[in-house]
Amino acid sequence: MKIERLKKLFSPESVAVIGASDSFEKLGYHVMKSLVKGGYRGPIYPVNPRADTIWGIKTYPNIKDIQQEIDLGIVAVPAGMVPSVLHECGEKNVKGVVLITAGYKEIEDFQGEILEQEIKDIAEGYQIPIIGPNTFGFVNLTDRVNASFTYEFSLIKKGGVTLISQSGGFCHLCGFLAMEERLGMAKLMSLGNRVNIDFPEALGYFLKEDKSTRVIALYIEGIDEPRKLFETIKSAGTKKPIIAFKAGKSEKGDSASRFHTGSLAGNYNIWRGALRQSGILEVKSAEELIDTAKVLDICAPIKGPRIAVLSGQAGPGIIAADAMEKEGLRLSRFSSETQDRINTLLPPVAIRTNPVDMGPAWYSPETMLNILEAVLEDSDTDGVIFIAMFASANLELTRRMAMLLHNIEPFKKPVIACFTAPAGVWDEDIEKMDGQKGLAILHTPERAAKAMANLWKANLTMDGNRWRD
Amino acid sequence: MKIERLKKLFSPESVAVIGASDSFEKLGYHVMKSLVKGGYRGPIYPVNPRADTIWGIKTYPNIKDIQQEIDLGIVAVPAGMVPSVLHECGEKNVKGVVLITAGYKEIEDFQGEILEQEIKDIAEGYQIPIIGPNTFGFVNLTDRVNASFTYEFSLIKKGGVTLISQSGGFCHLCGFLAMEERLGMAKLMSLGNRVNIDFPEALGYFLKEDKSTRVIALYIEGIDEPRKLFETIKSAGTKKPIIAFKAGKSEKGDSASRFHTGSLAGNYNIWRGALRQSGILEVKSAEELIDTAKVLDICAPIKGPRIAVLSGQAGPGIIAADAMEKEGLRLSRFSSETQDRINTLLPPVAIRTNPVDMGPAWYSPETMLNILEAVLEDSDTDGVIFIAMFASANLELTRRMAMLLHNIEPFKKPVIACFTAPAGVWDEDIEKMDGQKGLAILHTPERAAKAMANLWKANLTMDGNRWRD
Repeated sequence: MKIERLKKLFSPESVAVIGASDSFEKLGYHVMKSLVKGGYRGPIYPVNPRADTIWGIKTYPNIKDIQQEIDLGIVAVPAGMVPSVLHECGEKNVKGVVLITAGYKEIEDFQGEILEQEIKDIAEGYQIPIIGPNTFGFVNLTDRVNASFTYEFSLIKKGGVTLISQSGGFCHLCGFLAMEERLGMAKLMSLGNRVNIDFPEALGYFLKEDKSTRVIALYIEGIDEPRKLFETIKSAGTKKPIIAFKAGKSEKGDSASRFHTGSLAGNYNIWRGALRQSGILEVKSAEELIDTAKVLDICAPIKGPRIAVLSGQAGPGIIAADAMEKEGLRLSRFSSETQDRINTLLPPVAIRTNPVDMGPAWYSPETMLNILEAVLEDSDTDGVIFIAMFASANLELTRRMAMLLHNIEPFKKPVIACFTAPAGVWDEDIEKMDGQKGLAILHTPERAAKAMANLWKANLTMDGNRWRD
Repeated sequence: MKIERLKKLFSPESVAVIGASDSFEKLGYHVMKSLVKGGYRGPIYPVNPRADTIWGIKTYPNIKDIQQEIDLGIVAVPAGMVPSVLHECGEKNVKGVVLITAGYKEIEDFQGEILEQEIKDIAEGYQIPIIGPNTFGFVNLTDRVNASFTYEFSLIKKGGVTLISQSGGFCHLCGFLAMEERLGMAKLMSLGNRVNIDFPEALGYFLKEDKSTRVIALYIEGIDEPRKLFETIKSAGTKKPIIAFKAGKSEKGDSASRFHTGSLAGNYNIWRGALRQSGILEVKSAEELIDTAKVLDICAPIKGPRIAVLSGQAGPGIIAADAMEKEGLRLSRFSSETQDRINTLLPPVAIRTNPVDMGPAWYSPETMLNILEAVLEDSDTDGVIFIAMFASANLELTRRMAMLLHNIEPFKKPVIACFTAPAGVWDEDIEKMDGQKGLAILHTPERAAKAMANLWKANLTMDGNRWRD
């Protein structure tokens, strides 16, 4: 697969939408909406023989009628029309295709498999990389290309995480969670039936070629040649962390997965071993995937398992300490110098050993950040979990804390925060702080602890391989 | 402890705020805000010798200057003033007190313990039940009494779940999660230092006396007389499910918990056994607590572990099936009659066995609900997980589904849904459907599966004891 073609596919300078529509019921309407409202900056060429303009844009009866070069063709026409449309894309020298149309290998009718082989042959003939068929498309947040039928993906924060998924449903689940959790993403895509872009091709591209991708997340049900995937990772020689969610673990899930994407999920235990050997960290839920990807992208690297817990309320600090120890981390023992600094900052009414109850420092964000600084400088501490619950009674303090954080040096050790507040109370300040200076804000103390453990596990996993060597 | 006094405390017909304030920095300001903006319907009497009115309400120099009866006194004055204020409350025959002031047994200074004993003696003398000291207070959503310094708790949906917590921070965490997840609550409270209302007293009251409480959630760090708690449950003889989150599991967490609330958490394994023997279901995170409480309150009882998964997208259905089997549930095997009904409703391109891929029925909420109906009538199915991802492309369909659901009979088996959509796209419809007809909407397929398993575990746990016998 030519790298140049994949570059044009994922970062196109022009896009044609074959099957574009002004009718809300059609996917071609929503693809147009995604491109236009998603802020795509290159020219968009709707193709539809039954309209002069679509979404107010001049429309062509056939892609071959367009004079200009087309990098990406997004195809949303009925299955029967796809072969001829692909031939036209090939003749027009389109560099890459997103084939949204479904009804191929994934259906219980053998006719689907024949149609899919036909598409494969056409793609092979013209050397066109195709995402799909049976996909919602992809979204490139780095360059504002929303080549999917879900406009809302354009609302995801821009960042360094790329999700390569074998399921469109999972992409939607993660995309919506990403919005809620303010995960910064570079790209997300569903590979669909993987006619010629399978995990090795996509992963290889984002590992080696895409600079804006700093962390890769995979959702895998089953693939035909897992060996090829692991060889791709081995040969890539990059230090980008990879995490994976493997579905179809149970027998039943496995058989459903075969129907869904045409590949058997395979024995889960074999997968587990292979993932670990390849330095891929396995996550067990969509939320864990989002949280882990976020801290891997935002936080400084972690050097050890010794964690300090600082909390504005004792209870949530205890919960974080419990969760952390369960995950294999341990509470750091402050040096006497660090302990002295904390003792000076907090009155005797507080628990000043780890986990530190910052409750009495509540009136002063300065003090809280001074405690954080002291603990980050402690030589026995590898990372910090920083917890506080906010409501209208302490709203003013949070404003000041957000401002103070704005002016400090980036953290050299990972700091995972759990700042909880009722919706609307503090959204703007949380938004401002999240991702700044190496600070990642997660949803609950337990999830902060789990993500810190995953940061450490990813480090160990990667060290066992070629990363960070 | 007299039940009548606890009734007056938790559902007061009049409230005095001792230490009320018009100054944003004072907790007495926020308590006033909680009562006023929280919609308290009885008379409010601010008490403060340095003001004529507070929050625009006539203010008294001393509680004894108020002519009318006072059911509840909320005290937010400095620790040194508390004894005399309590004496005045006693003389005024106040029925119950919320003592927000901190600085007692929980501090490292032995003076705190002496002060706390003094309070205990005064309370004993006047027979006043006291929540606290060192508490944010309580919120009674049933009767709109927000006796806390966090106004936002009044925004929680009204429902049947009561949370009794040993930590104010945990209450805030859960309260904010409850808002996000639309958990309906009856009451929530932090017991603080438990001067005379400890877990047995509070739990006994809500088990036996409070009809609006249908499910009880406990957050326990450590208590002095756990035996008394378990005896209370045994003697209550009600069928209300109880779930518990036990913190301070690790050695370090345990010692932090002792400082925090003055009680050792104790050996976690002993706790685990005791909880199970008492028919209490243990949950392991704040989110699991919220999800489990929600399905216990909303869903029909579950009779067995055989679950059907219906999903608008195959991937998330496979994830739910995996998660479910991991938790000890299993996919039901449809009877041939049920299978025939589904086969008629779905085209052959879909996976029509369990987990069912409803993708092709996407255009028709009617069909999706018909499939749901067929599966609920299947004799081998004990519960249903129902998954769909929504975005602007299918927004109209969701409106129709919400309307259809409005007109059906309540489900006789538990139905846990995961309807995911970007914020703002479908909030209103989700809000309308959540909790209706026995349908509980949770955040992800994995959390839906976990909650279904907990519904079944709670049933088993309770059957081993006096519940549902």
